[in-house]
Amino acid sequence: MAIVTASTFQVPIEICATFAFALSGLIAGARKKMDAFGVFVVTGVAAFGGGTLRDVLLDRRPFFWVDHAGWIWLMLFLCLFAMIFMRNRHIQLTERAIQIPDALGLGLYAALGTQIALGLQLPVIICALMGVMTAVFGGVLRDIFCNEIPKAFNDYQPYAVIAFVGSLLVVALNAINLPQWICIFIPAGLIFLFRILAIYLEWRLPRWKMESNK
Amino acid sequence: MAIVTASTFQVPIEICATFAFALSGLIAGARKKMDAFGVFVVTGVAAFGGGTLRDVLLDRRPFFWVDHAGWIWLMLFLCLFAMIFMRNRHIQLTERAIQIPDALGLGLYAALGTQIALGLQLPVIICALMGVMTAVFGGVLRDIFCNEIPKAFNDYQPYAVIAFVGSLLVVALNAINLPQWICIFIPAGLIFLFRILAIYLEWRLPRWKMESNK
Amino acid sequence: MAIVTASTFQVPIEICATFAFALSGLIAGARKKMDAFGVFVVTGVAAFGGGTLRDVLLDRRPFFWVDHAGWIWLMLFLCLFAMIFMRNRHIQLTERAIQIPDALGLGLYAALGTQIALGLQLPVIICALMGVMTAVFGGVLRDIFCNEIPKAFNDYQPYAVIAFVGSLLVVALNAINLPQWICIFIPAGLIFLFRILAIYLEWRLPRWKMESNK
Repeated sequence: MAIVTASTFQVPIEICATFAFALSGLIAGARKKMDAFGVFVVTGVAAFGGGTLRDVLLDRRPFFWVDHAGWIWLMLFLCLFAMIFMRNRHIQLTERAIQIPDALGLGLYAALGTQIALGLQLPVIICALMGVMTAVFGGVLRDIFCNEIPKAFNDYQPYAVIAFVGSLLVVALNAINLPQWICIFIPAGLIFLFRILAIYLEWRLPRWKMESNK
Repeated sequence: MAIVTASTFQVPIEICATFAFALSGLIAGARKKMDAFGVFVVTGVAAFGGGTLRDVLLDRRPFFWVDHAGWIWLMLFLCLFAMIFMRNRHIQLTERAIQIPDALGLGLYAALGTQIALGLQLPVIICALMGVMTAVFGGVLRDIFCNEIPKAFNDYQPYAVIAFVGSLLVVALNAINLPQWICIFIPAGLIFLFRILAIYLEWRLPRWKMESNK
Repeated sequence: MAIVTASTFQVPIEICATFAFALSGLIAGARKKMDAFGVFVVTGVAAFGGGTLRDVLLDRRPFFWVDHAGWIWLMLFLCLFAMIFMRNRHIQLTERAIQIPDALGLGLYAALGTQIALGLQLPVIICALMGVMTAVFGGVLRDIFCNEIPKAFNDYQPYAVIAFVGSLLVVALNAINLPQWICIFIPAGLIFLFRILAIYLEWRLPRWKMESNK
C-alpha cells in the first residue's frame, strides 16, 4: 500500500496488530480443542479475514496475505508451536496480554480500511463500513467458524462502534485535506485510546428496552 | 438497473420488500438480544446479503447498497430507533405484518435476480438459482450469523421452491420474447400469490420417507 | 481446464469425486432432517463450495458449475430421489461407501487446485493452501450451513494435513519441470493412498498438550 509508506510506524504497529488478531483465533481454536488444521484456519481467518472480505467486496487483488506469503508460513509455525507448548494458564495470560495490541489493530485496521475505500471514491458511509469490516470481521468469521454467535454482536462492549466513529473521523479529516498520515494516525490513535478506556472503565452499550418478562 | 425502469411500480415494491427483509433481520437480532452493532449487521445482511452474494458470484460491481448509500444511513437509524422503542409485543406484531411485504420481496427479488443473470447469457438453471439466491440468501446468511440452521433449510414451507418455479417462468417468458416488464412482473406476481396461499393454507413440503425410529 | 485434458482418467475420477462430495452433503442434510431446499443447498455447497471459494479468491470466472450446468440438474434430481427412497440404513451404507471416492476427490481436487494457483504464479504456500481449500472447504461450508463446527477442524483425522503435504509435492514436481499430468497424478495418488491408510490404520493427529483439568 504505497498510500502510507511515508510512515515508519505503520509496519511495526501492523505486525503487532495482526499478531494479536491471529492469537485471538489461536485461543478460540484451542478453547474448542480443534486439531492442527482447525487451529490454523481459525487463526488465519481471525488475522486476515476482515481485510480479505473487504477486498472481495471492493474487488481488489492481490490480497495482503498473497503478497506477503511469509506471514502464512510464520502463522503455520506459530500454530504448531502453540499446540505443543501452550497450557491452560497461558490462554488466560494471552487473553489479557493481547488486549493492547488488539486495540492497536482495531484503530489501525479501521483507519487503513477507510482510507483504502476513500481512494476508490466511495460514499462516506461505505468507507466507514469498510473500515469497521477490516477491523472487526476477522473476529466475526472466527466466531462463525467456531460455531458461536460473534462476540462483537452480543457482548455489548463498544468495539465496532468506536471503530465506526473513528472511521467517520478519517473521512472528515480527508475532507479538510490534511496529509494522509494525519488522517490515518489521529483516528487510529483515538480508536486505540477509547478502546482501552472502554476496557478499563467497563463501558457498555445501551441494552434493549424490552420488558424483562420473556 | 436500466432494465426495468419502464415500470413505475418497481421502485415502491422494491422499497417495501427491502424494508421487510431488513425487519426480519432486526427481529432476529432482537430475539438473540444482540447489541447495536450485531443488530445492524444482521439487519443489513438480511436486507442486502442475497443480492450481494449474487453480485460477488457474477462479478458485478458496484453493489446496490454502494450505489444507494442513503439506505445504509436509513437502516442505521432504523436499528437505533428499534432498540429504544421496540417492545416484545411489537416483535410478534411485526412478524405478522411483514409476511406480505416479505412475499412481495420474494417474488420481485427472484424475478429481478433471474433477469440479471439472463442478461449475462448464463444457462437456464444458473439463472433460476441466481433468482432464488437473490430472494432467499439474505435470510440464510442472517440465520448463520445468528448461529441457527437457516429457517429456509428446515421449516418445510414452500418458500425457496416457489421462488425457483417462478424464476424458471421468468426464463420461459424471456424465451418467447415477451417484453421485459411482463417477464418480471407476471412471475413476481405469481410467486407472491402462491407464497401467500402457502402461508394461509399452511402448505408443507413433503418430508423424508425414513423410518420413524431414530 | 485445458491444463490437464491430456489425461483420459481425470474426467471419470472427477465425476466420482464430485459425486462423493455431493453425497456427503446429502447425508448431512438428511441427518438434520432438512427440507428439499436445504438438502439441495447443502449438497451443492459440499460438491462445489471449495472450488467456488478458491475461484472467488483468485478472481476466476466462470465457475465450474456455471460452465457445466447439467451437473446442477443432476444434483437436483439426486436430492429429490434421495428424499423419496433413502432410509436410515442407507445413510450408514452410503457413509462407508463414499470413503473411497471421497479420498479420490481429496487427492484430485487438492492437486488440481494447486496446479491452477501455480498457473497464476502465486507463492508456494498460497498454491498449497488453494489446493487444500479446493479439496476441504466444500465440507467446511457444508458443516457451517448445518450449524456444526466443521468436522475437518476437530476430528483429529489427517485429512487436510495429507492434502497439504500432497499440494506441496505438486509444487515441488512442477519446480523440477516434470510433465503436468505427472505433477498432478502422482501427488493425487499419494494423497489418496495415505488417506485410505489413515482411515484403516486409524491414524490421529497429535492433540493439545494441555492439562487434563478443564
